[in-house]
Amino acid sequence: MSWMTPKRAFMGAAAAEGGTKLNAFDNALLKLGIGNVNLVKLSSVIPAHIEWIEKVHDVPIGMLLPTVYAHIESDEPGMTISAALGVGISEGNEGGLIYEYSGYCTKKEAEEMVRKMVEEGFAVRGWKLKEFRAVSAEITVKDKPAAVVAAVVMFPY
Amino acid sequence: MSWMTPKRAFMGAAAAEGGTKLNAFDNALLKLGIGNVNLVKLSSVIPAHIEWIEKVHDVPIGMLLPTVYAHIESDEPGMTISAALGVGISEGNEGGLIYEYSGYCTKKEAEEMVRKMVEEGFAVRGWKLKEFRAVSAEITVKDKPAAVVAAVVMFPY
Amino acid sequence: MSWMTPKRAFMGAAAAEGGTKLNAFDNALLKLGIGNVNLVKLSSVIPAHIEWIEKVHDVPIGMLLPTVYAHIESDEPGMTISAALGVGISEGNEGGLIYEYSGYCTKKEAEEMVRKMVEEGFAVRGWKLKEFRAVSAEITVKDKPAAVVAAVVMFPY
Repeated sequence: MSWMTPKRAFMGAAAAEGGTKLNAFDNALLKLGIGNVNLVKLSSVIPAHIEWIEKVHDVPIGMLLPTVYAHIESDEPGMTISAALGVGISEGNEGGLIYEYSGYCTKKEAEEMVRKMVEEGFAVRGWKLKEFRAVSAEITVKDKPAAVVAAVVMFPY
Repeated sequence: MSWMTPKRAFMGAAAAEGGTKLNAFDNALLKLGIGNVNLVKLSSVIPAHIEWIEKVHDVPIGMLLPTVYAHIESDEPGMTISAALGVGISEGNEGGLIYEYSGYCTKKEAEEMVRKMVEEGFAVRGWKLKEFRAVSAEITVKDKPAAVVAAVVMFPY
Repeated sequence: MSWMTPKRAFMGAAAAEGGTKLNAFDNALLKLGIGNVNLVKLSSVIPAHIEWIEKVHDVPIGMLLPTVYAHIESDEPGMTISAALGVGISEGNEGGLIYEYSGYCTKKEAEEMVRKMVEEGFAVRGWKLKEFRAVSAEITVKDKPAAVVAAVVMFPY
């Protein structure tokens, strides 16, 4: 077990409303199952031989988890916001790359952005892209502040 | 001792001036006793059974400390800036939440914002709020750049 | 070996272009040898007795490395962007300070900014500045997004 070289990862995206922008963001994290931990923001590389898990469970409250995330909040009624993460896994699971995007756009547009970024990241490294996965979330602001978040959370065990 | 699940925490806020915005921020951290460590920014959850300490002491220079902080800098004479952190502790100290706010406002306004956010955070989780504490700092810019910071610093031991 | 109190550090700066701003940033990190790790952003203090290394090598893909960095991206043709880090080492290597700057300026201007900040940081602490080093990078945007980054990466061993 080591905080330094994560062993497992979870990937997800969610949208939520809240009484303030920060509460909306908090509510989106809760939907993802990571509202009660401390996210430590990372730049965006996936360790070799990572094992992907489907659900976050049994994490102590307040635990520090290294996380790559994209998010955006808005309180402008009628606006659509989206966040996406694109993950590229290399041949043999020898490592991978994560690229993030968030903005005033649809989730389809955000996903296209991260796909392009993953492809370029693999090309410049001369890595072979075995698998591409994206998660994204989109919300159109109504009468309350809203948030979207896309995250890859890494676990030391 | 573990970096992953902090055991103790310190909470404080300060304002300072400096020759640049970054130096003003640095000077505010020095007033809090955390100017000579490396802050690793966290999102905002308090581990269960945390013990609060009154003062930061005997920390090695350059140690990495997980910290929730809000800050803002300004060099516009006449403007008032404030930063606040609101901490809610749950019944039985089973965990807590920290919300942050900083902006062009008074510290009273910043404290009201974080109180509202803590209350909503507890409500959406169905947690019972046993205790609310806030720290905040305010400064009106004169002829030098100024900064305010509010922080909860966590310690692995 | 401890993630908490780094033992060695590397310092460098680079500029690069890319298909997007994030890819340009990624390409600048690759030039520095830190494109395949996860940077955990730090505020800016150098532990005592740090040993400086000339090159980053043999780091596992996706390892978490505490890093102080300044960066800026731009896609506005004709604009010049720069990033600099200034490092001040105290007498006896009892610790040091890092200040960062990035903006629309030349790297000479960015280096002057960080030198001033380091000098003020040492003065307010009453520390004696034994050595000052700066790294910086500059690029003028042409037809592709461009990025500059200056970084001090810390290693636990």
